[in-house]
Amino acid sequence: MKIGIIGGGSIGLLLAGRLGKQHEVTLFTRTECQADHINRAGGIEIKGIHPVFTACRAEAISRSKAIGVQDLLIVTVKQGAIDEILAYIQDVEMPLLFLQNGMGHLNKLDCLHSESVYVGITEHGALRENETTTIHTGMGAVRFGLYRGERQAALLGHQDDSDFPIEEVKDIYPKLIEKLIANACINPLTAVLGVRNGEIMANPYFRRVLKGLCKEICTGLGIEEEQHHEYLERVSLICERTADNKSSMLRDIEMHRKTEIESILGFCLEEANRRNEKMEAASMLYAMVRGLEESGGSEW
Amino acid sequence: MKIGIIGGGSIGLLLAGRLGKQHEVTLFTRTECQADHINRAGGIEIKGIHPVFTACRAEAISRSKAIGVQDLLIVTVKQGAIDEILAYIQDVEMPLLFLQNGMGHLNKLDCLHSESVYVGITEHGALRENETTTIHTGMGAVRFGLYRGERQAALLGHQDDSDFPIEEVKDIYPKLIEKLIANACINPLTAVLGVRNGEIMANPYFRRVLKGLCKEICTGLGIEEEQHHEYLERVSLICERTADNKSSMLRDIEMHRKTEIESILGFCLEEANRRNEKMEAASMLYAMVRGLEESGGSEW
Repeated sequence: MKIGIIGGGSIGLLLAGRLGKQHEVTLFTRTECQADHINRAGGIEIKGIHPVFTACRAEAISRSKAIGVQDLLIVTVKQGAIDEILAYIQDVEMPLLFLQNGMGHLNKLDCLHSESVYVGITEHGALRENETTTIHTGMGAVRFGLYRGERQAALLGHQDDSDFPIEEVKDIYPKLIEKLIANACINPLTAVLGVRNGEIMANPYFRRVLKGLCKEICTGLGIEEEQHHEYLERVSLICERTADNKSSMLRDIEMHRKTEIESILGFCLEEANRRNEKMEAASMLYAMVRGLEESGGSEW
Repeated sequence: MKIGIIGGGSIGLLLAGRLGKQHEVTLFTRTECQADHINRAGGIEIKGIHPVFTACRAEAISRSKAIGVQDLLIVTVKQGAIDEILAYIQDVEMPLLFLQNGMGHLNKLDCLHSESVYVGITEHGALRENETTTIHTGMGAVRFGLYRGERQAALLGHQDDSDFPIEEVKDIYPKLIEKLIANACINPLTAVLGVRNGEIMANPYFRRVLKGLCKEICTGLGIEEEQHHEYLERVSLICERTADNKSSMLRDIEMHRKTEIESILGFCLEEANRRNEKMEAASMLYAMVRGLEESGGSEW
Protein backbone atom coordinates (compact mmCIF):
# COMPACT_ATOMS: atom_id res chain seq x y z
CA MET A 1 0.00 0.00 0.00
CA LYS A 2 1.29 3.48 -0.84
CA ILE A 3 0.88 5.66 2.22
CA GLY A 4 1.58 9.39 2.28
CA ILE A 5 2.19 10.92 5.68
CA ILE A 6 1.78 14.68 5.89
CA GLY A 7 3.83 16.41 8.60
CA GLY A 8 7.40 15.74 9.70
CA GLY A 9 6.92 16.32 13.43
CA SER A 10 7.40 13.74 16.15
CA ILE A 11 4.25 11.76 15.28
CA GLY A 12 4.71 12.06 11.50
CA LEU A 13 8.23 10.66 11.74
CA LEU A 14 7.09 7.93 14.12
CA LEU A 15 4.29 6.81 11.77
CA ALA A 16 6.51 6.98 8.70
CA GLY A 17 9.20 4.95 10.44
CA ARG A 18 6.79 2.29 11.71
CA LEU A 19 4.43 2.02 8.72
CA GLY A 20 7.40 2.10 6.35
CA LYS A 21 8.34 -1.38 7.52
CA GLN A 22 5.36 -2.83 5.63
CA HIS A 23 4.19 -0.11 3.28
CA GLU A 24 5.66 2.17 0.68
CA VAL A 25 5.70 5.42 2.65
CA THR A 26 6.31 8.96 1.44
CA LEU A 27 6.65 11.69 4.05
CA PHE A 28 5.40 15.13 3.02
CA THR A 29 7.20 17.83 4.98
CA ARG A 30 6.67 21.55 5.32
CA THR A 31 10.27 22.44 4.46
CA GLU A 32 12.47 21.31 1.59
CA CYS A 33 15.31 21.19 4.04
CA GLN A 34 13.73 18.39 6.08
CA ALA A 35 12.84 16.42 2.92
CA ASP A 36 16.46 16.75 1.72
CA HIS A 37 17.79 15.55 5.06
CA ILE A 38 15.57 12.46 5.00
CA ASN A 39 16.34 11.63 1.37
CA ARG A 40 20.06 12.01 1.98
CA ALA A 41 19.86 9.81 5.10
CA GLY A 42 17.77 7.34 3.08
CA GLY A 43 15.07 7.12 5.73
CA ILE A 44 13.94 7.76 9.27
CA GLU A 45 15.40 6.63 12.56
CA ILE A 46 13.24 5.79 15.56
CA LYS A 47 14.96 5.74 18.95
CA GLY A 48 13.51 4.77 22.31
CA ILE A 49 11.01 1.89 22.38
CA HIS A 50 11.80 -0.66 19.61
CA PRO A 51 14.51 1.34 17.81
CA VAL A 52 14.51 0.92 14.04
CA PHE A 53 15.77 2.57 10.88
CA THR A 54 13.27 2.57 8.01
CA ALA A 55 13.93 3.45 4.39
CA CYS A 56 11.56 6.20 3.31
CA ARG A 57 11.25 8.96 0.72
CA ALA A 58 10.31 12.52 1.54
CA GLU A 59 8.99 15.51 -0.42
CA ALA A 60 8.29 19.10 0.54
CA ILE A 61 4.51 19.30 0.31
CA SER A 62 4.64 22.60 -1.62
CA ARG A 63 6.53 20.85 -4.46
CA SER A 64 4.87 17.52 -4.11
CA LYS A 65 4.36 15.33 -7.18
CA ALA A 66 3.58 12.13 -5.32
CA ILE A 67 0.64 13.30 -3.25
CA GLY A 68 -1.92 12.32 -5.89
CA VAL A 69 -0.70 8.75 -6.30
CA GLN A 70 -1.07 7.57 -2.69
CA ASP A 71 -3.60 4.95 -1.58
CA LEU A 72 -4.01 6.70 1.77
CA LEU A 73 -2.94 10.07 3.17
CA ILE A 74 -2.40 10.45 6.91
CA VAL A 75 -2.35 14.05 8.15
CA THR A 76 -0.26 14.45 11.32
CA VAL A 77 0.28 18.22 11.48
CA LYS A 78 -0.95 20.17 14.51
CA GLN A 79 -4.49 21.42 14.34
CA GLY A 80 -3.24 24.97 13.89
CA ALA A 81 -1.65 24.00 10.55
CA ILE A 82 -4.69 22.20 9.14
CA ASP A 83 -5.90 25.14 7.02
CA GLU A 84 -2.59 25.27 5.22
CA ILE A 85 -2.67 21.53 4.50
CA LEU A 86 -6.28 21.48 3.29
CA ALA A 87 -5.27 23.52 0.23
CA TYR A 88 -3.06 20.63 -0.90
CA ILE A 89 -5.53 17.83 -0.33
CA GLN A 90 -8.85 19.52 -1.07
CA ASP A 91 -9.33 17.70 -4.37
CA VAL A 92 -7.67 14.33 -3.83
CA GLU A 93 -9.92 11.28 -3.96
CA MET A 94 -8.08 8.67 -1.93
CA PRO A 95 -9.00 8.05 1.75
CA LEU A 96 -7.72 10.56 4.27
CA LEU A 97 -6.92 10.01 7.95
CA PHE A 98 -6.57 12.99 10.29
CA LEU A 99 -4.67 12.58 13.56
CA GLN A 100 -4.93 15.85 15.49
CA ASN A 101 -5.47 16.82 19.09
CA GLY A 102 -8.75 18.56 19.78
CA MET A 103 -11.94 18.54 17.74
CA GLY A 104 -12.14 22.09 16.46
CA HIS A 105 -10.92 21.06 13.01
CA LEU A 106 -13.61 18.46 12.34
CA ASN A 107 -16.09 20.81 10.70
CA LYS A 108 -13.38 21.90 8.27
CA LEU A 109 -13.21 18.38 6.88
CA ASP A 110 -16.65 18.70 5.30
CA CYS A 111 -15.23 20.61 2.33
CA LEU A 112 -12.93 17.77 1.22
CA HIS A 113 -13.57 15.85 -2.02
CA SER A 114 -12.31 12.54 -0.69
CA GLU A 115 -15.10 10.04 -0.23
CA SER A 116 -13.59 8.45 2.87
CA VAL A 117 -12.49 10.84 5.59
CA TYR A 118 -11.25 9.18 8.75
CA VAL A 119 -10.19 10.76 12.02
CA GLY A 120 -8.21 9.19 14.81
CA ILE A 121 -6.08 9.64 17.86
CA THR A 122 -2.62 8.49 18.78
CA GLU A 123 -1.75 7.58 22.33
CA HIS A 124 1.97 7.48 21.65
CA GLY A 125 4.54 9.67 23.30
CA ALA A 126 7.18 10.89 20.86
CA LEU A 127 9.79 13.64 20.78
CA ARG A 128 11.43 14.79 17.55
CA GLU A 129 15.20 14.75 18.05
CA ASN A 130 16.11 16.23 14.67
CA GLU A 131 14.82 16.31 11.11
CA THR A 132 15.24 12.60 10.50
CA THR A 133 14.99 11.14 14.01
CA THR A 134 12.17 10.76 16.53
CA ILE A 135 12.27 9.26 20.01
CA HIS A 136 9.38 6.95 20.84
CA THR A 137 8.90 7.67 24.55
CA GLY A 138 5.48 6.22 25.31
CA MET A 139 3.72 3.15 23.92
CA GLY A 140 0.07 3.33 22.98
CA ALA A 141 -2.12 2.65 19.99
CA VAL A 142 -3.45 4.54 17.00
CA ARG A 143 -7.24 4.35 16.89
CA PHE A 144 -9.26 5.62 13.97
CA GLY A 145 -12.76 5.53 12.62
CA LEU A 146 -14.78 6.85 9.73
CA TYR A 147 -15.75 10.49 10.10
CA ARG A 148 -17.57 11.04 6.80
CA GLY A 149 -18.23 9.12 3.57
CA GLU A 150 -17.64 5.51 2.66
CA ARG A 151 -15.87 3.02 4.83
CA GLN A 152 -12.98 1.26 3.04
CA ALA A 153 -12.91 -2.53 3.35
CA ALA A 154 -9.58 -2.71 5.13
CA LEU A 155 -7.89 0.59 5.58
CA LEU A 156 -4.47 -0.22 7.01
CA GLY A 157 -5.79 -3.77 7.24
CA HIS A 158 -2.48 -5.24 6.23
CA GLN A 159 -0.74 -3.42 9.03
CA ASP A 160 0.47 -6.22 11.26
CA ASP A 161 3.06 -4.74 13.58
CA SER A 162 2.55 -5.88 17.16
CA ASP A 163 5.01 -3.18 18.27
CA PHE A 164 2.74 -0.54 16.83
CA PRO A 165 -0.95 -1.42 17.08
CA ILE A 166 -3.40 0.34 14.81
CA GLU A 167 -7.06 -0.27 15.46
CA GLU A 168 -10.15 0.72 13.54
CA VAL A 169 -13.12 1.43 15.80
CA LYS A 170 -16.76 1.62 14.84
CA ASP A 171 -17.46 4.94 16.53
CA ILE A 172 -14.44 7.17 16.90
CA TYR A 173 -16.38 10.06 18.47
CA PRO A 174 -16.19 8.83 22.11
CA LYS A 175 -12.44 8.29 21.68
CA LEU A 176 -12.01 11.83 20.38
CA ILE A 177 -13.98 13.22 23.32
CA GLU A 178 -11.97 11.14 25.77
CA LYS A 179 -8.66 12.31 24.30
CA LEU A 180 -9.92 15.91 24.19
CA ILE A 181 -10.85 15.84 27.88
CA ALA A 182 -7.53 14.24 28.85
CA ASN A 183 -5.58 16.82 26.86
CA ALA A 184 -7.73 19.68 28.16
CA CYS A 185 -7.01 18.63 31.75
CA ILE A 186 -3.45 17.35 31.76
CA ASN A 187 -1.75 19.66 29.26
CA PRO A 188 -2.69 23.07 30.67
CA LEU A 189 -2.28 21.97 34.30
CA THR A 190 1.22 20.57 33.76
CA ALA A 191 2.14 23.64 31.69
CA VAL A 192 1.03 26.14 34.35
CA LEU A 193 2.36 24.18 37.33
CA GLY A 194 5.58 23.20 35.58
CA VAL A 195 5.30 19.53 36.60
CA ARG A 196 5.42 16.15 34.89
CA ASN A 197 2.15 14.29 34.26
CA GLY A 198 2.50 11.98 37.25
CA GLU A 199 2.75 14.84 39.75
CA ILE A 200 -0.87 15.80 38.96
CA MET A 201 -1.97 12.50 40.51
CA ALA A 202 0.74 12.17 43.15
CA ASN A 203 0.07 15.57 44.71
CA PRO A 204 -3.27 15.58 46.59
CA TYR A 205 -3.95 19.26 45.88
CA PHE A 206 -3.20 18.96 42.17
CA ARG A 207 -5.42 15.87 42.12
CA ARG A 208 -8.20 17.98 43.57
CA VAL A 209 -7.65 20.60 40.86
CA LEU A 210 -7.75 17.88 38.18
CA LYS A 211 -11.01 16.56 39.56
CA GLY A 212 -12.72 19.96 39.59
CA LEU A 213 -11.40 20.83 36.15
CA CYS A 214 -12.44 17.51 34.61
CA LYS A 215 -15.94 17.91 36.00
CA GLU A 216 -16.19 21.44 34.67
CA ILE A 217 -15.01 20.41 31.20
CA CYS A 218 -17.42 17.45 31.09
CA THR A 219 -20.29 19.78 32.01
CA GLY A 220 -19.17 22.27 29.39
CA LEU A 221 -19.11 19.58 26.72
CA GLY A 222 -22.62 18.47 27.64
CA ILE A 223 -21.61 15.10 29.04
CA GLU A 224 -24.17 13.70 31.45
CA GLU A 225 -23.28 13.88 35.10
CA GLU A 226 -23.31 10.14 35.74
CA GLN A 227 -20.51 9.78 33.17
CA HIS A 228 -18.20 12.43 34.69
CA HIS A 229 -16.60 9.98 37.07
CA GLU A 230 -15.77 7.58 34.24
CA TYR A 231 -13.93 10.34 32.34
CA LEU A 232 -12.04 11.39 35.46
CA GLU A 233 -10.95 7.78 35.92
CA ARG A 234 -9.58 7.63 32.39
CA VAL A 235 -7.78 10.96 32.68
CA SER A 236 -6.27 9.83 35.99
CA LEU A 237 -5.11 6.60 34.41
CA ILE A 238 -3.40 8.48 31.57
CA CYS A 239 -1.61 10.71 34.11
CA GLU A 240 -0.35 7.66 35.94
CA ARG A 241 0.64 5.75 32.79
CA THR A 242 2.60 8.74 31.48
CA ALA A 243 3.86 9.80 34.90
CA ASP A 244 7.44 10.54 33.82
CA ASN A 245 6.43 12.45 30.68
CA LYS A 246 6.42 16.16 30.23
CA SER A 247 3.24 17.07 28.36
CA SER A 248 3.68 18.64 24.94
CA MET A 249 2.17 21.85 26.31
CA LEU A 250 4.70 22.06 29.14
CA ARG A 251 7.49 21.46 26.63
CA ASP A 252 6.07 24.14 24.33
CA ILE A 253 5.97 26.67 27.19
CA GLU A 254 9.51 25.75 28.25
CA MET A 255 10.73 26.18 24.67
CA HIS A 256 8.81 29.46 24.22
CA ARG A 257 6.71 27.93 21.44
CA LYS A 258 3.03 28.43 20.70
CA THR A 259 0.99 25.73 22.42
CA GLU A 260 -2.13 23.85 21.29
CA ILE A 261 -4.25 25.54 23.99
CA GLU A 262 -6.58 27.05 21.39
CA SER A 263 -7.46 23.70 19.77
CA ILE A 264 -7.85 21.94 23.09
CA LEU A 265 -9.11 24.03 26.02
CA GLY A 266 -10.15 26.87 23.71
CA PHE A 267 -12.43 24.47 21.85
CA CYS A 268 -13.97 23.24 25.14
CA LEU A 269 -14.65 26.83 26.21
CA GLU A 270 -16.38 27.57 22.90
CA GLU A 271 -18.52 24.46 23.26
CA ALA A 272 -19.43 25.45 26.81
CA ASN A 273 -20.23 28.94 25.62
CA ARG A 274 -22.62 27.56 23.01
CA ARG A 275 -24.33 25.70 25.83
CA ASN A 276 -24.34 28.75 28.11
CA GLU A 277 -22.24 26.86 30.63
CA LYS A 278 -19.78 28.96 32.62
CA MET A 279 -16.35 27.40 33.10
CA GLU A 280 -14.63 29.67 35.62
CA ALA A 281 -11.66 27.45 36.47
CA ALA A 282 -11.07 26.35 32.88
CA SER A 283 -11.29 29.96 31.67
CA MET A 284 -8.66 31.01 34.17
CA LEU A 285 -6.41 28.13 33.20
CA TYR A 286 -6.85 28.95 29.51
CA ALA A 287 -5.85 32.58 30.06
CA MET A 288 -2.89 31.52 32.21
CA VAL A 289 -1.50 29.36 29.39
CA ARG A 290 -2.12 32.09 26.80
CA GLY A 291 -0.34 34.52 29.12
CA LEU A 292 2.62 32.16 29.63
CA GLU A 293 2.91 31.87 25.84
CA GLU A 294 3.13 35.66 25.64
CA SER A 295 5.49 36.13 28.53
CA GLY A 296 7.86 33.46 27.30
CA GLY A 297 7.39 31.13 30.22
CA SER A 298 8.22 31.31 33.85
CA GLU A 299 11.30 33.12 35.01
CA TRP A 300 12.10 30.56 37.73
CA MET B 1 7.48 56.00 74.44
CA LYS B 2 8.51 52.40 75.16
CA ILE B 3 7.51 50.29 72.15
CA GLY B 4 7.79 46.51 72.06
CA ILE B 5 7.82 44.93 68.64
CA ILE B 6 7.01 41.24 68.50
CA GLY B 7 8.52 39.33 65.57
CA GLY B 8 11.98 39.63 64.04
CA GLY B 9 10.97 39.10 60.41
CA SER B 10 11.37 41.63 57.61
CA ILE B 11 8.57 43.92 58.84
CA GLY B 12 9.46 43.56 62.54
CA LEU B 13 13.05 44.59 61.85
CA LEU B 14 11.90 47.44 59.61
CA LEU B 15 9.54 48.83 62.27
CA ALA B 16 12.10 48.42 65.05
CA GLY B 17 14.74 50.18 62.97
CA ARG B 18 12.48 53.07 61.97
CA LEU B 19 10.54 53.57 65.22
CA GLY B 20 13.77 53.18 67.20
CA LYS B 21 14.92 56.55 65.92
CA GLN B 22 12.36 58.30 68.15
CA HIS B 23 11.23 55.71 70.66
CA GLU B 24 12.77 53.27 73.08
CA VAL B 25 12.23 50.06 71.14
CA THR B 26 12.63 46.46 72.30
CA LEU B 27 12.36 43.71 69.69
CA PHE B 28 10.89 40.41 70.89
CA THR B 29 12.15 37.55 68.77
CA ARG B 30 11.21 33.90 68.53
CA THR B 31 14.78 32.66 68.94
CA GLU B 32 17.42 33.53 71.51
CA CYS B 33 19.93 33.36 68.71
CA GLN B 34 18.40 36.33 66.87
CA ALA B 35 18.12 38.38 70.10
CA ASP B 36 21.80 37.67 70.82
CA HIS B 37 22.82 38.74 67.35
CA ILE B 38 20.95 42.04 67.64
CA ASN B 39 22.25 42.77 71.13
CA ARG B 40 25.81 42.03 70.07
CA ALA B 41 25.43 44.24 66.98
CA GLY B 42 23.88 46.91 69.21
CA GLY B 43 20.91 47.40 66.93
CA ILE B 44 19.29 46.89 63.56
CA GLU B 45 20.43 47.86 60.12
CA ILE B 46 18.01 48.95 57.39
CA LYS B 47 19.30 48.83 53.84
CA GLY B 48 17.54 49.95 50.66
CA ILE B 49 15.35 53.05 50.88
CA HIS B 50 16.77 55.51 53.48
CA PRO B 51 19.44 53.25 54.95
CA VAL B 52 19.95 53.65 58.69
CA PHE B 53 21.43 51.86 61.69
CA THR B 54 19.32 52.13 64.83
CA ALA B 55 20.32 51.17 68.35
CA CYS B 56 17.85 48.66 69.74
CA ARG B 57 17.58 45.95 72.40
CA ALA B 58 16.19 42.50 71.74
CA GLU B 59 14.84 39.67 73.88
CA ALA B 60 13.66 36.17 73.04
CA ILE B 61 9.93 36.35 73.76
CA SER B 62 9.98 33.08 75.69
CA ARG B 63 12.40 34.60 78.24
CA SER B 64 11.05 38.09 78.08
CA LYS B 65 11.17 40.29 81.16
CA ALA B 66 10.47 43.57 79.37
CA ILE B 67 7.18 42.69 77.70
CA GLY B 68 5.08 43.92 80.61
CA VAL B 69 6.70 47.37 80.84
CA GLN B 70 5.99 48.58 77.29
CA ASP B 71 3.60 51.44 76.48
CA LEU B 72 2.62 49.75 73.23
CA LEU B 73 3.16 46.30 71.73
CA ILE B 74 3.19 45.87 67.96
CA VAL B 75 2.71 42.30 66.76
CA THR B 76 4.34 41.70 63.36
CA VAL B 77 4.47 37.90 63.18
CA LYS B 78 2.69 36.10 60.35
CA GLN B 79 -0.92 35.20 60.96
CA GLY B 80 0.02 31.54 61.29
CA ALA B 81 2.11 32.34 64.38
CA ILE B 82 -0.53 34.44 66.15
CA ASP B 83 -1.76 31.65 68.43
CA GLU B 84 1.71 31.15 69.81
CA ILE B 85 2.10 34.88 70.50
CA LEU B 86 -1.30 35.29 72.15
CA ALA B 87 -0.12 33.15 75.05
CA TYR B 88 2.49 35.79 75.90
CA ILE B 89 0.25 38.84 75.60
CA GLN B 90 -3.09 37.48 76.75
CA ASP B 91 -2.99 39.33 80.08
CA VAL B 92 -1.06 42.53 79.31
CA GLU B 93 -2.96 45.78 79.67
CA MET B 94 -1.13 48.19 77.39
CA PRO B 95 -2.43 48.93 73.88
CA LEU B 96 -1.74 46.30 71.23
CA LEU B 97 -1.37 46.79 67.50
CA PHE B 98 -1.62 43.79 65.15
CA LEU B 99 -0.11 44.00 61.66
CA GLN B 100 -0.93 40.79 59.80
CA ASN B 101 -2.01 39.88 56.30
CA GLY B 102 -5.50 38.48 56.05
CA MET B 103 -8.40 38.81 58.45
CA GLY B 104 -8.81 35.30 59.80
CA HIS B 105 -7.05 36.19 63.04
CA LEU B 106 -9.38 39.05 64.04
CA ASN B 107 -11.87 36.96 66.00
CA LYS B 108 -8.98 35.59 68.08
CA LEU B 109 -8.28 39.09 69.40
CA ASP B 110 -11.50 39.10 71.41
CA CYS B 111 -9.92 37.07 74.19
CA LEU B 112 -7.22 39.65 74.99
CA HIS B 113 -7.25 41.61 78.25
CA SER B 114 -5.83 44.79 76.74
CA GLU B 115 -8.40 47.57 76.61
CA SER B 116 -7.14 48.98 73.33
CA VAL B 117 -6.65 46.51 70.53
CA TYR B 118 -5.66 48.04 67.21
CA VAL B 119 -5.17 46.37 63.85
CA GLY B 120 -3.40 47.74 60.83
CA ILE B 121 -1.73 47.08 57.54
CA THR B 122 1.69 47.89 56.19
CA GLU B 123 2.19 48.71 52.55
CA HIS B 124 5.97 48.42 52.78
CA GLY B 125 8.07 45.99 50.86
CA ALA B 126 10.85 44.49 52.95
CA LEU B 127 13.17 41.50 52.74
CA ARG B 128 15.08 40.17 55.74
CA GLU B 129 18.73 39.84 54.78
CA ASN B 130 19.90 38.27 58.02
CA GLU B 131 19.05 38.30 61.73
CA THR B 132 19.92 41.96 62.24
CA THR B 133 19.38 43.43 58.77
CA THR B 134 16.34 44.11 56.63
CA ILE B 135 16.15 45.61 53.14
CA HIS B 136 13.43 48.20 52.65
CA THR B 137 12.43 47.54 49.05
CA GLY B 138 9.09 49.32 48.69
CA MET B 139 7.85 52.55 50.25
CA GLY B 140 4.35 52.74 51.64
CA ALA B 141 2.63 53.64 54.87
CA VAL B 142 1.50 51.89 58.02
CA ARG B 143 -2.23 52.46 58.59
CA PHE B 144 -3.97 51.40 61.74
CA GLY B 145 -7.25 51.84 63.53
CA LEU B 146 -9.02 50.73 66.67
CA TYR B 147 -10.39 47.20 66.44
CA ARG B 148 -11.81 46.84 69.96
CA GLY B 149 -11.86 48.80 73.22
CA GLU B 150 -10.80 52.34 74.02
CA ARG B 151 -9.06 54.64 71.60
CA GLN B 152 -5.82 56.09 72.99
CA ALA B 153 -5.41 59.85 72.65
CA ALA B 154 -2.36 59.71 70.47
CA LEU B 155 -1.05 56.24 69.84
CA LEU B 156 2.24 56.69 68.00
CA GLY B 157 1.26 60.38 67.89
CA HIS B 158 4.82 61.49 68.48
CA GLN B 159 5.98 59.49 65.49
CA ASP B 160 7.17 62.18 63.13
CA ASP B 161 9.29 60.45 60.50
CA SER B 162 8.46 61.63 56.99
CA ASP B 163 10.48 58.71 55.62
CA PHE B 164 8.13 56.30 57.37
CA PRO B 165 4.56 57.56 57.56
CA ILE B 166 2.24 56.04 60.13
CA GLU B 167 -1.38 57.03 59.94
CA GLU B 168 -4.30 56.36 62.25
CA VAL B 169 -7.59 55.95 60.36
CA LYS B 170 -11.08 56.14 61.78
CA ASP B 171 -12.31 52.91 60.22
CA ILE B 172 -9.59 50.37 59.49
CA TYR B 173 -12.01 47.71 58.20
CA PRO B 174 -12.15 48.92 54.56
CA LYS B 175 -8.34 49.07 54.51
CA LEU B 176 -8.11 45.51 55.78
CA ILE B 177 -10.57 44.34 53.12
CA GLU B 178 -8.66 46.20 50.41
CA LYS B 179 -5.36 44.69 51.49
CA LEU B 180 -6.94 41.25 51.76
CA ILE B 181 -8.30 41.42 48.22
CA ALA B 182 -4.99 42.68 46.83
CA ASN B 183 -3.09 39.91 48.61
CA ALA B 184 -5.65 37.29 47.59
CA CYS B 185 -5.27 38.27 43.93
CA ILE B 186 -1.62 39.19 43.48
CA ASN B 187 0.12 36.71 45.76
CA PRO B 188 -1.32 33.42 44.49
CA LEU B 189 -1.24 34.48 40.83
CA THR B 190 2.41 35.51 40.94
CA ALA B 191 3.27 32.37 42.90
CA VAL B 192 1.60 30.01 40.42
CA LEU B 193 2.75 31.83 37.29
CA GLY B 194 6.24 32.48 38.60
CA VAL B 195 6.22 36.15 37.61
CA ARG B 196 6.89 39.50 39.26
CA ASN B 197 3.92 41.68 40.28
CA GLY B 198 4.14 43.95 37.25
CA GLU B 199 3.78 41.09 34.76
CA ILE B 200 0.22 40.51 36.00
CA MET B 201 -0.75 43.92 34.57
CA ALA B 202 1.66 43.99 31.62
CA ASN B 203 0.44 40.68 30.17
CA PRO B 204 -3.08 41.02 28.71
CA TYR B 205 -4.03 37.42 29.53
CA PHE B 206 -2.81 37.63 33.12
CA ARG B 207 -4.69 40.93 33.42
CA ARG B 208 -7.82 39.11 32.34
CA VAL B 209 -7.20 36.44 34.97
CA LEU B 210 -6.70 39.14 37.62
CA LYS B 211 -9.96 40.79 36.64
CA GLY B 212 -11.99 37.58 36.86
CA LEU B 213 -10.36 36.56 40.11
CA CYS B 214 -10.86 39.97 41.74
CA LYS B 215 -14.54 39.93 40.79
CA GLU B 216 -14.97 36.43 42.16
CA ILE B 217 -13.28 37.32 45.45
CA CYS B 218 -15.34 40.50 45.84
CA THR B 219 -18.52 38.49 45.29
CA GLY B 220 -17.35 35.87 47.77
CA LEU B 221 -16.69 38.54 50.41
CA GLY B 222 -20.17 39.99 49.92
CA ILE B 223 -18.99 43.26 48.36
CA GLU B 224 -21.68 44.91 46.27
CA GLU B 225 -21.25 44.66 42.54
CA GLU B 226 -20.98 48.40 41.88
CA GLN B 227 -17.88 48.46 44.09
CA HIS B 228 -16.05 45.59 42.33
CA HIS B 229 -14.51 47.88 39.75
CA GLU B 230 -13.10 50.15 42.45
CA TYR B 231 -11.34 47.22 44.12
CA LEU B 232 -9.95 46.01 40.80
CA GLU B 233 -8.55 49.50 40.17
CA ARG B 234 -6.77 49.48 43.53
CA VAL B 235 -5.36 45.99 43.05
CA SER B 236 -4.16 46.97 39.57
CA LEU B 237 -2.49 50.07 40.97
CA ILE B 238 -0.65 48.01 43.60
CA CYS B 239 0.58 45.62 40.87
CA GLU B 240 1.91 48.53 38.88
CA ARG B 241 3.49 50.31 41.86
CA THR B 242 5.26 47.13 42.95
CA ALA B 243 5.98 45.97 39.40
CA ASP B 244 9.57 44.87 40.06
CA ASN B 245 8.78 43.05 43.31
CA LYS B 246 8.43 39.36 43.78
CA SER B 247 5.44 38.77 46.02
CA SER B 248 6.13 37.15 49.37
CA MET B 249 4.14 34.11 48.22
CA LEU B 250 6.28 33.66 45.11
CA ARG B 251 9.40 33.95 47.27
CA ASP B 252 7.99 31.43 49.74
CA ILE B 253 7.30 28.94 46.93
CA GLU B 254 10.75 29.49 45.46
CA MET B 255 12.35 28.93 48.86
CA HIS B 256 10.18 25.85 49.55
CA ARG B 257 8.60 27.57 52.55
CA LYS B 258 5.03 27.44 53.75
CA THR B 259 3.04 30.35 52.26
CA GLU B 260 0.31 32.53 53.76
CA ILE B 261 -2.29 31.09 51.34
CA GLU B 262 -4.43 29.81 54.21
CA SER B 263 -4.75 33.23 55.91
CA ILE B 264 -5.37 35.02 52.64
CA LEU B 265 -7.18 33.10 49.91
CA GLY B 266 -8.22 30.36 52.36
CA PHE B 267 -10.00 32.98 54.45
CA CYS B 268 -11.79 34.37 51.37
CA LEU B 269 -12.96 30.87 50.42
CA GLU B 270 -14.33 30.30 53.92
CA GLU B 271 -16.20 33.60 53.80
CA ALA B 272 -17.62 32.72 50.39
CA ASN B 273 -18.61 29.33 51.70
CA ARG B 274 -20.53 30.93 54.58
CA ARG B 275 -22.37 32.96 51.95
CA ASN B 276 -22.96 29.93 49.71
CA GLU B 277 -21.01 31.62 46.93
CA LYS B 278 -19.03 29.31 44.68
CA MET B 279 -15.53 30.51 43.77
CA GLU B 280 -14.38 28.10 41.08
CA ALA B 281 -11.32 30.00 39.87
CA ALA B 282 -10.19 31.01 43.36
CA SER B 283 -10.64 27.44 44.60
CA MET B 284 -8.44 26.14 41.81
CA LEU B 285 -5.81 28.78 42.48
CA TYR B 286 -5.86 27.98 46.20
CA ALA B 287 -5.33 24.27 45.55
CA MET B 288 -2.55 25.04 43.05
CA VAL B 289 -0.62 27.03 45.67
CA ARG B 290 -1.20 24.36 48.32
CA GLY B 291 0.04 21.80 45.82
CA LEU B 292 3.13 23.83 44.94
CA GLU B 293 3.90 24.07 48.67
CA GLU B 294 3.76 20.28 48.86
CA SER B 295 5.71 19.57 45.72
CA GLY B 296 8.47 21.98 46.66
CA GLY B 297 7.84 24.37 43.82
CA SER B 298 8.25 24.12 40.11
CA GLU B 299 10.99 22.02 38.62
CA TRP B 300 11.76 24.53 35.87
